[in-house]
Amino acid sequence: MLYRLVVTQEQIEDNIIHLQKEQEHYLRRVVRLNNEDNFIVINGQGSCWKVKLTPHGGEIIESLTENRELPIAVTLMVALPKGNGFEDIIRCTTELGVNQLQPLISDRTLLKPSTNKLQRWRKIAIESAEQSERQIVPYIAPPISVNEAFTTANKLTIPKYIAFARSSTPHLQYFLTKDLSSSVPAQMIIATGCEGGWTTKEVEKAIACQFQEVSLGKRILRAVTAPIMAMSLVSSAIENN
Amino acid sequence: MLYRLVVTQEQIEDNIIHLQKEQEHYLRRVVRLNNEDNFIVINGQGSCWKVKLTPHGGEIIESLTENRELPIAVTLMVALPKGNGFEDIIRCTTELGVNQLQPLISDRTLLKPSTNKLQRWRKIAIESAEQSERQIVPYIAPPISVNEAFTTANKLTIPKYIAFARSSTPHLQYFLTKDLSSSVPAQMIIATGCEGGWTTKEVEKAIACQFQEVSLGKRILRAVTAPIMAMSLVSSAIENN
Repeated sequence: MLYRLVVTQEQIEDNIIHLQKEQEHYLRRVVRLNNEDNFIVINGQGSCWKVKLTPHGGEIIESLTENRELPIAVTLMVALPKGNGFEDIIRCTTELGVNQLQPLISDRTLLKPSTNKLQRWRKIAIESAEQSERQIVPYIAPPISVNEAFTTANKLTIPKYIAFARSSTPHLQYFLTKDLSSSVPAQMIIATGCEGGWTTKEVEKAIACQFQEVSLGKRILRAVTAPIMAMSLVSSAIENN
Repeated sequence: MLYRLVVTQEQIEDNIIHLQKEQEHYLRRVVRLNNEDNFIVINGQGSCWKVKLTPHGGEIIESLTENRELPIAVTLMVALPKGNGFEDIIRCTTELGVNQLQPLISDRTLLKPSTNKLQRWRKIAIESAEQSERQIVPYIAPPISVNEAFTTANKLTIPKYIAFARSSTPHLQYFLTKDLSSSVPAQMIIATGCEGGWTTKEVEKAIACQFQEVSLGKRILRAVTAPIMAMSLVSSAIENN
């Protein structure tokens, strides 16, 4: 299995990959590649090449057509959990095929993320995309308020779900079966709350912004588990064959 | 919402709950309950009571009939991942309704767990069962070899699945839809591999022991994510309404 590396569009010039110093160091010292050895380069936007290591960087040998991406761009709007929980969410949901993660500052969010956090989160997304052999690196958006996120979502006529604990609403799986049965929409949004759950104001806002309330089952999930479960269900509903 | 506490059967005598010293300390100092305050006690085997704190311990007020349990006992056979990954698996899959976790020592398992680990794992299962408001505490079995686990499973005529990466076999979701459509079996086993995947010998053993090979989608999941996804799908297939 070849090592996978994510590069930016600016690093690609004709059939040459301009490796960053740290990337070259990593390939030679850690992955232990020598000149003429092959590795895989992805640009994080769907393109993928087999590349040969040379004294001058990488040389593209061939374009690859592998595709492990879902045919739907799923945005998970995730109220930031305590501690490092969001890092686990990035890792797991990247493996499960998420397209974008929108961290939310909800009324009950305890964490106030620093700008360093965003950089760290994006690094984790790159690593997870490499490990799970994806062609796309999920975009980790800067954290915004629930109000702002829901207002923006309201403008999109796509399926939008918001997960509730202790709710008598049908299960997310029920809506996925219904909404994905005839054709797969291009986009979808799923919002999950933080430890204390959504406030009444947040719920009212979601409903006003055309979010469908859904259940994730009878048990009380942590803020970390809910988005992982939701993404598991979407990818399975689509790859179910 | 009332605080939930797991006690052993031996702590229950008629309508009195004999609290352990640490439990009483936790209830009074951390949860900040006073005498006459209520909390919920579960015995981890399906029974559940509303209990009043008294100077002598707990006094059962009434038996509760709430039920957040799945009607199927799912055993996850999980090849032990690196580091503390198994702790994340216990937390998430307990929330998702697992009945038993069987840690596996596979040919590619790097972790050699100490006996202390098992105690720690069981403590995490209790905490997660309390938090997710379950009536049952999942049983964390002592780690055994893949060979032993699959041989034991072979004696059970229940659905048994083994998850593979890079496989052309149908998705777990496909088999769940099929196998749960007419009636829900009493038990089910799902096995997931460690970082390096299963060895050829392990795969052959699984097939000889009547395990059905299944896929969990196109992307490569870590050893931590696979059992969480599998448990998400089982609980949703059953609670899907």
